[in-house]
Amino acid sequence: MENFNYYNPVKVLFGEGKIAEIANYIPKTMKVMMTYGGGSIKKNGVYDQVMDALKGMNVIEFGGIEPNPHYETLMKAVEIARRENVGFLLAVGGGSVIDGTKFIAAATCYDGEEPWDIVLKGAPVKGALPLAAVLTLPATGSEMNNGGVITRVSTQEKLAFHSPLVFPKFSVLDPKVTYSLPKRQLANGIVDTFVHVMEQYYTTSENVEIQDRFSEGILQTLLVVGPRVMADEQPNYQDRANFMWAATMGLNGLIAVGTEQDWSTHYIGHELTAFHGLDHGVTLAIVLPGVMRATKENRKRKLLQFASRVWGIDATLPDAAEQAIARTEQFFNSLGVKTRLGDYGVGMETVERIEKRFRDRGNYAIGGIDDVNVDNVREILVSRL
Amino acid sequence: MENFNYYNPVKVLFGEGKIAEIANYIPKTMKVMMTYGGGSIKKNGVYDQVMDALKGMNVIEFGGIEPNPHYETLMKAVEIARRENVGFLLAVGGGSVIDGTKFIAAATCYDGEEPWDIVLKGAPVKGALPLAAVLTLPATGSEMNNGGVITRVSTQEKLAFHSPLVFPKFSVLDPKVTYSLPKRQLANGIVDTFVHVMEQYYTTSENVEIQDRFSEGILQTLLVVGPRVMADEQPNYQDRANFMWAATMGLNGLIAVGTEQDWSTHYIGHELTAFHGLDHGVTLAIVLPGVMRATKENRKRKLLQFASRVWGIDATLPDAAEQAIARTEQFFNSLGVKTRLGDYGVGMETVERIEKRFRDRGNYAIGGIDDVNVDNVREILVSRL
Repeated sequence: MENFNYYNPVKVLFGEGKIAEIANYIPKTMKVMMTYGGGSIKKNGVYDQVMDALKGMNVIEFGGIEPNPHYETLMKAVEIARRENVGFLLAVGGGSVIDGTKFIAAATCYDGEEPWDIVLKGAPVKGALPLAAVLTLPATGSEMNNGGVITRVSTQEKLAFHSPLVFPKFSVLDPKVTYSLPKRQLANGIVDTFVHVMEQYYTTSENVEIQDRFSEGILQTLLVVGPRVMADEQPNYQDRANFMWAATMGLNGLIAVGTEQDWSTHYIGHELTAFHGLDHGVTLAIVLPGVMRATKENRKRKLLQFASRVWGIDATLPDAAEQAIARTEQFFNSLGVKTRLGDYGVGMETVERIEKRFRDRGNYAIGGIDDVNVDNVREILVSRL
Repeated sequence: MENFNYYNPVKVLFGEGKIAEIANYIPKTMKVMMTYGGGSIKKNGVYDQVMDALKGMNVIEFGGIEPNPHYETLMKAVEIARRENVGFLLAVGGGSVIDGTKFIAAATCYDGEEPWDIVLKGAPVKGALPLAAVLTLPATGSEMNNGGVITRVSTQEKLAFHSPLVFPKFSVLDPKVTYSLPKRQLANGIVDTFVHVMEQYYTTSENVEIQDRFSEGILQTLLVVGPRVMADEQPNYQDRANFMWAATMGLNGLIAVGTEQDWSTHYIGHELTAFHGLDHGVTLAIVLPGVMRATKENRKRKLLQFASRVWGIDATLPDAAEQAIARTEQFFNSLGVKTRLGDYGVGMETVERIEKRFRDRGNYAIGGIDDVNVDNVREILVSRL
């Protein structure tokens, strides 16, 4: 185990009816900007629940935050937040809305020239509006972490930023709000959670017993609950609750303490989204099996542990590693997620553009471990055609 | 899963050398009271490390906090803290020192008549001095939670209190500080952690997949690391690190979210300590097997899951539950902890006193689940003679 600092002050309000409690945690004197996405919250009742809970408070709205939230859109919110002297941001939506709202929080208080520098150059976040979240889509973990991923349309870039100042003050996780989600979004959320865990667990780190067990526990939970969530005709509260909590625990920093992290599957996937607009979860399902095969010698110990503990595969079998990779891909397929580039009409041209982009950025390793790098990213993607 | 709120703002500084960083997290202008126990920190170098880290700050000391910290002792510290206008408390020790320091923090700011009411009557904690911890003994989890257990010698009472105001601002977990611990204390810490997890996991709660997996992961880690920690002639850093992190995760609130909790083993154990001064860990190792046998029908589902997932016992065997209980007791024995009342010279007289005490308190259930109660506590204790 490596040395680490761990800090996560997000208050989680979990369960049916918890939206009604949010006003207890927002200072009464502050003007609140409620942010959301494409408007599904107006159809499924979440908007009304939130507005009821905020009755009597000074609330303005900013809707229209896209999946893979656009810098261009978020900067409009920043302008309004500054002009209207907004004191508190309440994100009501999935990871994109929450990530975007974190950026609004930081950019509103940014005193440099161009807030894009926060993501592009890692310009320090010295202040941020307080924010909170009402989660509607379990997937990204953004509701309990301090990171966000922002897309700039004009340059086709999708990049991450982190700051302790953008931890949500609280996040509401009501499993019932997931009832109206399309199965496609649920599938993406399951895949996203699975791959978040893999980026932190499937490494060369040893002697991280608790972190490994917790990671495996989240994966095992997804294997049990994921197919039930996908198959239910009437949503089952407990299944949704277990999935929702799994997604949050998959990326709140806890399983990553004292370990290596990779994130190469995400970084490669981000490029597929940037170039083709593919769903984030889909890109991860495509890329992960390729990354696992390319790294299976270097990360053999953890891969065999994964095979054994998560899949129950006899790790002494000569093809245990390959079986674990194949079953992971089959799991994604079983959720209705296709896992080949060709399934989405993506071909060699994109592979070459992505390889070039990583080369141009000048780093050898793509994620945190150098067994996925500018020299094998092409081969990884070709294996996924 | 039941509805829950989760909040844990403790910053964890984990790893070798982390004590040197503490001054970064203590306001420079505040007078610091450093609290500690019997003085082992002066022999093992921890005192010097802390004092080096605090160089240039205004520090006073309060030593002599006992195992099972005494109200009477802590009130002396309260008097000094008030007189000296102490602004920050730094607990350097194990769970007793940290628990005691939490009480000092709350009692110093208490404006009622008698601070003992905080534990005896649950009098509300409206203010508390900020506090932090340098942990020297992995066991109680106090370094990352908001509870404390205090003993009043004059009345032979040992009682718990909780307040969000007594979360440590930060806690330092340096596995190296455990190197000088006697094996007996390490064994107690392993048992304590094991039983903490059981109190939150071994219940009738269903549909708590993540919580169950995390609990089982901590237990599995203890089964692997515990015997190595007990057997090592030279301390192994990684084993100590994994044990230390397991102990913290075992009682920081995370595995308990949305679940029932019991704590009957602790409450019964506290009486054994109150009457006979037995080590806390020892009392838990004595009581738990009895509690498990008394509840094995009511909690059958979880007990068989424990048998299967933690011990690898075939849960379809007719004696799977009994095997799991027997192996749990053998595990404690393997750490050098004897698990019978008779091993400590405790007999029927104490059993009767304890039964009477629970009856006098007027609650039927002893912990959070009423299958351990005033009517079967005698039988449970008799089975442990």
